[in-house]
Amino acid sequence: MKKFEENIRRVEPYVPGEQPAGSNIIKLNTNESPFAPSTMVQMAIASMMPEDLRKYPDPEAKALVKEIASYYDVDESKVFVGVGSDDILGMSFLTFFNSDKPVLFPDITYSFYDVWAELYGIKYEKIPLTDEFEIDPKKYKKENGGIVFANPNAPTGIALPKAQVEEIIAANPDSVVIVDEAYIDFGGETVLDLIDKYENLLVVRTFSKSRALAGMRVGYAFGSETLINALKDVKFSYNSYTLNVAAIRGAKAAIKDDEYFRNLVDEITKTREETKMTLKKMGFDVLPSATNFLFAKHESMDAKDIYEKLKEKDIYIRYFDKPRIDNYIRITIGTKEQMNALVMALEDIIK
Amino acid sequence: MKKFEENIRRVEPYVPGEQPAGSNIIKLNTNESPFAPSTMVQMAIASMMPEDLRKYPDPEAKALVKEIASYYDVDESKVFVGVGSDDILGMSFLTFFNSDKPVLFPDITYSFYDVWAELYGIKYEKIPLTDEFEIDPKKYKKENGGIVFANPNAPTGIALPKAQVEEIIAANPDSVVIVDEAYIDFGGETVLDLIDKYENLLVVRTFSKSRALAGMRVGYAFGSETLINALKDVKFSYNSYTLNVAAIRGAKAAIKDDEYFRNLVDEITKTREETKMTLKKMGFDVLPSATNFLFAKHESMDAKDIYEKLKEKDIYIRYFDKPRIDNYIRITIGTKEQMNALVMALEDIIK
Repeated sequence: MKKFEENIRRVEPYVPGEQPAGSNIIKLNTNESPFAPSTMVQMAIASMMPEDLRKYPDPEAKALVKEIASYYDVDESKVFVGVGSDDILGMSFLTFFNSDKPVLFPDITYSFYDVWAELYGIKYEKIPLTDEFEIDPKKYKKENGGIVFANPNAPTGIALPKAQVEEIIAANPDSVVIVDEAYIDFGGETVLDLIDKYENLLVVRTFSKSRALAGMRVGYAFGSETLINALKDVKFSYNSYTLNVAAIRGAKAAIKDDEYFRNLVDEITKTREETKMTLKKMGFDVLPSATNFLFAKHESMDAKDIYEKLKEKDIYIRYFDKPRIDNYIRITIGTKEQMNALVMALEDIIK
Repeated sequence: MKKFEENIRRVEPYVPGEQPAGSNIIKLNTNESPFAPSTMVQMAIASMMPEDLRKYPDPEAKALVKEIASYYDVDESKVFVGVGSDDILGMSFLTFFNSDKPVLFPDITYSFYDVWAELYGIKYEKIPLTDEFEIDPKKYKKENGGIVFANPNAPTGIALPKAQVEEIIAANPDSVVIVDEAYIDFGGETVLDLIDKYENLLVVRTFSKSRALAGMRVGYAFGSETLINALKDVKFSYNSYTLNVAAIRGAKAAIKDDEYFRNLVDEITKTREETKMTLKKMGFDVLPSATNFLFAKHESMDAKDIYEKLKEKDIYIRYFDKPRIDNYIRITIGTKEQMNALVMALEDIIK
């Protein structure tokens, strides 16, 4: 190792789900929407003017912030936007978790949390989910330097009732509590209305799932002015202009077409419940999902085997080779046709 | 202050140039291109498919990396891309500057460098430019934890000859040396060809200036595989997908239309030299510029006064209220018509 390499930060990066190319592939591995966004989104992007491309975007993305604030009936000063919810979560770790005490999050949850903690050298402690893969609020009543969890949780899909989420927030007035609501539109109860009651609560959301805009990279968050202003200061200490003009326009249009959004979510949740019933009949134990994916294990066949055999048939699902969940598969809800193809493939594999 | 606020990172953010709205405004304050990007860029963005929007972008933005690598005749493994050069520079501070020794950069340079150092708690030392506002390589031959400077430098516009840039790199084999070439296309000598000779050299560029794509937020960097891989690890520890599909497509198209790019740069450098001569006749001392802006002071009139009086006339330039340069103004080179309007306004103000 050369001397200059000694000062290079060494990290173990997060591994995103594969992004295979090819039109025959059925991609059920990264929880994207199987439906394209509203045509209004494409129109908004395609109608950009040359002026919009040559000039820097609005550093605060006010047009989008305003649209989000109005839709969710929240003051604009309590809204923050970023390059996907990952950008906001990563920035939040840097901004809010500067204590000597450990940050708490579930042992089974979004696997980026420990990556961010490692990146910034933040101490953390993983709190085990119950045997039923549920978050137990009682376990979050100990000294900590911050709390973060996904609700509904990933990759389990299980939602924690609002009263219990509030129990965790209320028990921790001295820490920032981040509730990652990436999947909230597909089920579960939001705690958005609690941001006025708890100044230490940050609610993080994304356009990548229910808003069908993963390709544009837009996330948003709600919190007290104290939290949002601190996030803004860090954002403006890192990169003045993060969301580009296409992202701002596209996301704004996605919010505007509310009917399209509601139909899309309805369709996906319906397909989810149908798929769940079918999988159960095939011998799967399927966890209750409030998301756009199912987390399941089979009574006789090995999860990794199923994952690999589906891949051979050009069907991509997600498998995590991690303690407690290494016999589960995560299946993103696709179109009805994609789910039928999945079921047919599974029938072929499992016999 | 509530207890949870004690663990919030406190930073003094970078203040970007104003982004005034309104069609009558002449905006010469953020070094954007006065010309729109090639129509190929807009076509590439407008032709995106619904599939591109609903699916995550390629996390490595390979299509764009490939285009850049081919254009600059560099191996793909030596290219990195990000959300503007700010994203890459900020990430580079986090990745490469982890020493107890101070990072060195000029006292007068891109004012984001000390903001990033403060954000990540990195020690730094500002090395004074000479009285002629030039970088003196001799002063960079001392113990350090890294070096970063802009060449051509901002806001001075002055380029350091290649031999002297190499002198700094060669003298510092134990540190990562970052050369920020945001303005290199308008003049100055690149050190791109030195990345094979010096494994500790990172060259950072942007699409925001000469490529007329500030609105899309794309930056790129060249370096040894050691440096690029370290940057990739940190990038994938922060956000898997940073460049959205529109940015990847738009930037790729911008590289492809080389003739447009060359004409645009020619036009701007010609206008720069003409404007410089005119300003000199009006009593301005104008520094030699190898960029798309001029840095100048007037023989009798106060810089801040000029800045404010131009603003009253809807002409925005940049004024930095900082030691050594508080009597200078920075003027972005616009179209010939915009420069004529500027000169007329100045004639009106200065008398």
